[in-house]
Amino acid sequence: MSDRELSAKALALDAKQASFALAASSAASRAAALEAIAAALEARREEIFAANAEDLATAKAEGIAAPVLKRLKFDEGKLRDVCRGLRDLAAMEDPIGHEQLRTELADGMILSRVSCPIGVVGVIFESRPDALVQIAGLCLKSGNAVLLKGGREAMRSNAVLYDVLREASEAAGMPKGWAGLLTTREDVGVMLKMDGAIDLIIPRGSNAFVRYIMDNSRIPVLGHSDGVCHLYLDKGCDAEMAARIAVDAKTQYPAACNAAETLLVHSEELHRALPVVADALAKAGVRLIGDERAAQVIACEAATEADWAAEYLDDVISIRVVDSLQEAIAHINRYGSHHTDCIITADDEAAKVFFALVDSAGVYRNCSTRFADGFRYGFGAEVGISTGKIHARGPMGLEGLCSYKYILCGSGDIVADFAQGRREFTHRKLL
Amino acid sequence: MSDRELSAKALALDAKQASFALAASSAASRAAALEAIAAALEARREEIFAANAEDLATAKAEGIAAPVLKRLKFDEGKLRDVCRGLRDLAAMEDPIGHEQLRTELADGMILSRVSCPIGVVGVIFESRPDALVQIAGLCLKSGNAVLLKGGREAMRSNAVLYDVLREASEAAGMPKGWAGLLTTREDVGVMLKMDGAIDLIIPRGSNAFVRYIMDNSRIPVLGHSDGVCHLYLDKGCDAEMAARIAVDAKTQYPAACNAAETLLVHSEELHRALPVVADALAKAGVRLIGDERAAQVIACEAATEADWAAEYLDDVISIRVVDSLQEAIAHINRYGSHHTDCIITADDEAAKVFFALVDSAGVYRNCSTRFADGFRYGFGAEVGISTGKIHARGPMGLEGLCSYKYILCGSGDIVADFAQGRREFTHRKLL
Repeated sequence: MSDRELSAKALALDAKQASFALAASSAASRAAALEAIAAALEARREEIFAANAEDLATAKAEGIAAPVLKRLKFDEGKLRDVCRGLRDLAAMEDPIGHEQLRTELADGMILSRVSCPIGVVGVIFESRPDALVQIAGLCLKSGNAVLLKGGREAMRSNAVLYDVLREASEAAGMPKGWAGLLTTREDVGVMLKMDGAIDLIIPRGSNAFVRYIMDNSRIPVLGHSDGVCHLYLDKGCDAEMAARIAVDAKTQYPAACNAAETLLVHSEELHRALPVVADALAKAGVRLIGDERAAQVIACEAATEADWAAEYLDDVISIRVVDSLQEAIAHINRYGSHHTDCIITADDEAAKVFFALVDSAGVYRNCSTRFADGFRYGFGAEVGISTGKIHARGPMGLEGLCSYKYILCGSGDIVADFAQGRREFTHRKLL
Repeated sequence: MSDRELSAKALALDAKQASFALAASSAASRAAALEAIAAALEARREEIFAANAEDLATAKAEGIAAPVLKRLKFDEGKLRDVCRGLRDLAAMEDPIGHEQLRTELADGMILSRVSCPIGVVGVIFESRPDALVQIAGLCLKSGNAVLLKGGREAMRSNAVLYDVLREASEAAGMPKGWAGLLTTREDVGVMLKMDGAIDLIIPRGSNAFVRYIMDNSRIPVLGHSDGVCHLYLDKGCDAEMAARIAVDAKTQYPAACNAAETLLVHSEELHRALPVVADALAKAGVRLIGDERAAQVIACEAATEADWAAEYLDDVISIRVVDSLQEAIAHINRYGSHHTDCIITADDEAAKVFFALVDSAGVYRNCSTRFADGFRYGFGAEVGISTGKIHARGPMGLEGLCSYKYILCGSGDIVADFAQGRREFTHRKLL
């Protein structure tokens, strides 16, 4: 085993060890540590900016694209945002130790279920250095130890940010090793095999990358793969509202997973709402790719089967005409990615059917799919958006980072007494 | 692809199709279907008993062990139990459509989170035909389509039971194909690859089997692997109570995953509680395997390192002497299987520390580990006991078979208005 592998393994084992102490730490101590990290980040700002400037210079020299450079930048504004984020987290209600149920099983035996941290969470994230602070903050607030693997481009920025947060949090009493920084691809390989030490992996990245992780680890994986979100224009919808929402859902940030990729249009709206929406999208600079019926009404390129499953992540949208709400729903469940899908309708009954039958984390009516986000949902932040249905679905905040345990208190109770009919269960709900 | 593979694939795709309709079905219709299944099972009892008699005869001819034969038997008593179970389920509160949160995101925009079925659940279970009915009942109540793969020994019983439940439920209006019966090992192989159609796999079986499933599928897997449960005798514990609980936890049903496998004893109890407990266990026919210190006080075989991780599933227990509560906790977290562990103590503070630091689905005080069970917890039944920390932990009943979706209703709201400061989020909790 190489030194690098040994070191990644040691970080994971340290995190596991720290996770026990962290699970037993007080809400006040974790909140104080979050405040301490914010203060330390502010105190060491120049060091952070200098490291980030080096990362930016290297990235520019390597000819990295402008949008990536923008994400890589960690300036005064980003520092202010992450520090505010940490202080907001510190002030939020503690997610750990909540009693979720309390039942009297039988006279004198009380069962309760209490929220607790998951343990050790491994997060693989992209080139934004601010993501490192956000993710570590969410994990600390929820009592989880964390292994952080950031993008290569942000290497120097991440190293300094990590050093600040580790030092400040440990000085504030958090257990040594609760956060570990992994830096190489080789480290990720080591992480995937450590199912004894790591409880959950959250990969933020491409669909292919997420599948690679799932195929190569026994550790549970949460996170989204694709974001193929739909807007469905129901018959009788408000065309102006549809146009406004379509432009926002497509162009407000086309590279986001919650941007719309396909517009479904009820055939009765072919000559009414479709031209209005298509015109607004075209004016906003969006390339339109439509099926045959759409092409008879609006100017667009010809769609192929591949377009229905495409995540363009760009100013491009596919358009398909359907003959019913049911056909729209079937299309979404077949080609979509179970992320966020919206119906534009004035019909309450149609919305109800759409909500019940569309199998997605977010089912919307009359608003932009871009609202699918932990901050916008009021969760403070998110470690990812889950398109799976197990554990957490949609934007994953503090609650998604918690598990629970059952606590049973008795006074010498044995099962034989119940099996042999000497005692009976009462199952009285106390909460 | 063989006919068999095609057929397993078709069952999975049918289940996926049915899952959408099932998710939108009413609570009353699902409850009525459960009642209809119970009535049909009673009506076709002779047919069921005849098939079961054939399975039993084959198993006997093959020289299958007595405990397996006992589990395989489906008689009047078992029929009564499963029918009562189905009717209890029908009467329980519906787990689907519960509003779990409601937040005003901004003026006129309401976000709610509503429980919904997971979709299609694949369950691989052991030789008990009654398990087929129980699992199908839990899935139907929670609106999930299900693929059932039972033990080979129960093949004929399962075929009849499945036929009854499918026919009765479909006649009662449940969507065709909501339940599918898989019969071969080859079917399981097909199932593992169908990550587009199946949302969750619950394998009930050996540790090696569960790991095999995890290594060969991208589909999330829930369920327990081992059951290495501990009893820790804290200093000052009530020795008589400890003896009573130890005998129950070890011998009431030693083959169960919630039976105790290791006794940890505080060194101050070496001469006081240990002999009392060891004596009671020996009298109950339990083989004792102890470490060196224990062997100085009680008659026992010498333990090796392998004993601390052993799941005996038999009348055998390992005994280790520890010098502190912390050492006991460290032993449990290192060698245990995160299932259920109990402290016998009169000390509230010690119990508190044990509850916080032991990383198991169940942390108990002064009662038998055998209480870890969905029925005993008041969940009606269970599809399995999860020793993982993602999604569901401990006995997994209806709640563990549910996911949720976020519903967002607006009136033309777009993200650009918030991004550009024209509107602000209110995040007002309405629930």
